[in-house]
Amino acid sequence: MRPEPPTSTAELTAPKISPVGNSANIKWHQCSVGKLDRQELLQQKGCVIWITGLSGSGKSTVACALSRALHSRGKLTFVLDGDNVRHGLNRDLSFKAEDRAENIRRIGEVAKLFSDAGVICIASLISPYRKDRAACRALLPEGDFIEVFMDVPLQVCEARDPKGLYKLARSGKIKGFTGIDDPYEPPLDCEIVLKQTERDCASPCDMAEQVISYLEEKGYLMA
Amino acid sequence: MRPEPPTSTAELTAPKISPVGNSANIKWHQCSVGKLDRQELLQQKGCVIWITGLSGSGKSTVACALSRALHSRGKLTFVLDGDNVRHGLNRDLSFKAEDRAENIRRIGEVAKLFSDAGVICIASLISPYRKDRAACRALLPEGDFIEVFMDVPLQVCEARDPKGLYKLARSGKIKGFTGIDDPYEPPLDCEIVLKQTERDCASPCDMAEQVISYLEEKGYLMA
Repeated sequence: MRPEPPTSTAELTAPKISPVGNSANIKWHQCSVGKLDRQELLQQKGCVIWITGLSGSGKSTVACALSRALHSRGKLTFVLDGDNVRHGLNRDLSFKAEDRAENIRRIGEVAKLFSDAGVICIASLISPYRKDRAACRALLPEGDFIEVFMDVPLQVCEARDPKGLYKLARSGKIKGFTGIDDPYEPPLDCEIVLKQTERDCASPCDMAEQVISYLEEKGYLMA
Repeated sequence: MRPEPPTSTAELTAPKISPVGNSANIKWHQCSVGKLDRQELLQQKGCVIWITGLSGSGKSTVACALSRALHSRGKLTFVLDGDNVRHGLNRDLSFKAEDRAENIRRIGEVAKLFSDAGVICIASLISPYRKDRAACRALLPEGDFIEVFMDVPLQVCEARDPKGLYKLARSGKIKGFTGIDDPYEPPLDCEIVLKQTERDCASPCDMAEQVISYLEEKGYLMA
């Protein structure tokens, strides 16, 4: 005979458990503190600001400026940088096509978790294909995926070449480099375009302010 | 001739970039807002509370109670539940040995990101092998990985069987089930043991308070 669970552990089975999808043995645990509670605490709404664009287009710099500007307003942000994540969570992934897709998928899933935590998550990665970005967007509630396109001509990015990667790509030392021998698909309907040309280029702070105006207007900077 | 980058974009190359490990083409971007800034904002220290134990030992319930108790003190928490993550980030993983290890590795990496964001991250998963837990601990700065062992006898967990999994495992419908036909390696030197027996069982709230006392003592509930 198996012992009955002691009465005092009755609460131990308290969390709502419901089956999800077709995984019969994996249940979804609903926790008593939810996204709304965390948003109330933080006085902001969790969301994902997805910055896409060519290498050298200024994604990381804008992510950084945006994070700083929001922090100075008392808002909690976290930057998920495509390169940085490859040193941790995605260290097992290469640069072949399916691994690049998986890299983006995982960052999308992690960004979703941060958004659910109430954090303004700033994801900064080339993410060249519309399909992959659309899949990340689909993970989030309507409106919470804010796609920011760094609209910078290839020649400007290549002239900057802050990491020397274009040079390596042009000399054939890197294969499948976005913009050189692999396509970049610009967004067709993104929320924000940050346009730069050879002659006309806003400062990172100004670009960050453009994003902040959007967030303010849409109510993301209050609970 | 390639155009020079316009002067006004000089700041665009501002973030500190340094090579990491042996990945010559992946640089580490240091962002101007760091963990300390976020901790100051949140008035808490980011850390990972790793709750390990058998299925049915009350991990999710304690995670939930802890999250609720910390939230009521104005602290930001986020629960990473092993089962829930399998519906998103880890949906590509099966239950075979290497996939279970990868499941834990990824949750460890994500927990590290949350901790870096300043969040008190509560990870709740069986994580039966010492090796896998040690690898997650190693990702974090000294002291920031707080291992909580749900020390509950197998027969108590099996009597509870909230998801009916022990029944399936005993009848051979689930193979490699921890505690039945796969080992659970209890921690040898974890930070907190939450012991329950058939006769003596603290309430989830009392167990949460034990963890909170630890966090308070170690200074995690202030910046």
